Amino acid sequence: MFIIGERINGMFKDVAQAIQKKDKAVIQELAKKQVSSGASALDVNVGPSSDNPKEAMEWLVKTITEVSDAPLAIDTTKIDVMEAGLSACKSKPIINSVNANQDKMDPLFGLAKKYNASVIGLTMDKAGIPKDAEGRLELGMKIVASAMEHGINLSDLYLDAVILPVNVAQVHAKEVLRAIRESKMLADPAPKTILGLSNVSQGAPSQCKAIINRTFLAMAIASGLDAAIMDATDKELVDAAITAELLMEKQLYCDSFLDAYRKK
Amino acid sequence: MFIIGERINGMFKDVAQAIQKKDKAVIQELAKKQVSSGASALDVNVGPSSDNPKEAMEWLVKTITEVSDAPLAIDTTKIDVMEAGLSACKSKPIINSVNANQDKMDPLFGLAKKYNASVIGLTMDKAGIPKDAEGRLELGMKIVASAMEHGINLSDLYLDAVILPVNVAQVHAKEVLRAIRESKMLADPAPKTILGLSNVSQGAPSQCKAIINRTFLAMAIASGLDAAIMDATDKELVDAAITAELLMEKQLYCDSFLDAYRKK
Repeated sequence: MFIIGERINGMFKDVAQAIQKKDKAVIQELAKKQVSSGASALDVNVGPSSDNPKEAMEWLVKTITEVSDAPLAIDTTKIDVMEAGLSACKSKPIINSVNANQDKMDPLFGLAKKYNASVIGLTMDKAGIPKDAEGRLELGMKIVASAMEHGINLSDLYLDAVILPVNVAQVHAKEVLRAIRESKMLADPAPKTILGLSNVSQGAPSQCKAIINRTFLAMAIASGLDAAIMDATDKELVDAAITAELLMEKQLYCDSFLDAYRKK
Repeated sequence: MFIIGERINGMFKDVAQAIQKKDKAVIQELAKKQVSSGASALDVNVGPSSDNPKEAMEWLVKTITEVSDAPLAIDTTKIDVMEAGLSACKSKPIINSVNANQDKMDPLFGLAKKYNASVIGLTMDKAGIPKDAEGRLELGMKIVASAMEHGINLSDLYLDAVILPVNVAQVHAKEVLRAIRESKMLADPAPKTILGLSNVSQGAPSQCKAIINRTFLAMAIASGLDAAIMDATDKELVDAAITAELLMEKQLYCDSFLDAYRKK
């Protein structure tokens, strides 16, 4: 499982404060903790309140790369902030994200080519998020086609079928699972699939969020999910991911499979 | 989720002793506990050591029906023990199980017709358990055809794709998931699907069994699983089943969905 830790995001108070005070230690601790818990990469989002998001993104990326080689997913909707983040990365970066609008794909796939970045493509457009799997697949195909036109390797593309909170949009979960499964047939090699997992439990009672997250993650892995942006410090969630991948035969069985994965 | 509680089985010491001593209280407590924990039905197996399995099965069934209306799954390979169990049932019984051998299907589908029973059909035959989904589907088709010839309603048929322990037969889990998904296309109406869940973690270290069981259950529900023979008293396992079904939109969302399911 390619786990992208979601925690370095200015929506969290501690991160917003650290950005403001240029407090490297807070960010570096979060980075190290997520990687040691099982994250293969780290999402980086300056959050909504930054005065100078370009500078903040550059500072975050440089701060993290001082303590970790993990690839970084530059998470912003602003093209100049994206380029500031990408250009500061040392490992192969990830663009988080494009959607299926041509006026988003053209500049962002351009940046992907320039910085040899992977790209997360959300199956949504100006009309919103389709209700069913078919709508998601149609937008996924647009993204695949545009990526190919821009000379992006399909093995560098992650399609995100966009899960909505189950408490307000219950019909979506099973459509997302089907979209994940069927998107494997959109191209050869198949585009990888990813989810912004925590969204599924947004708004659910706090005591139910964890079980909704880990149950949906196991279900998505059964449907072929390759990667997730998620809370890498939730041990039970990472355990569920490891066990689901074991059952999909993506890791060889040994009696200590949970530890073995973490030692890799 | 149609949960068949697995606990009334003479392989467990307390059940074997209760059968020997005709101790109704032990069996009735097990029955009540499983039903209150979420079991929709109860498996009944006299175990390997009974001197008079026919009499033991009849006693078990009568003992359970004194305290519960739950349907009973009569779990035996012996045809006379099966009939003893079926004839003692008050609710619609379940035959657990037939396999794809004609010499098993003919008498057992005959009994199913006679006692208006549902039937669990294991996708295995004299040659054993197929390694892949295709082999399982082929045997599933034989079972479906034989059921139809015997005038069994397909809505009364549960196909069991037979999961093997992940520690010795890791390749099987993902094939079982695919078999569950594709067996829905074998007939119209689609046969239901079931798993003897605990087998997946047989032989795994005791501290890993529960997470293997509940992760695989969520994955199987994502693949279309309708029912499972499982430990209904494992709260986290039942919680995983309820949550997975919520995400498949088989139960309407409410903030107290875990309690709401159990109150039904």
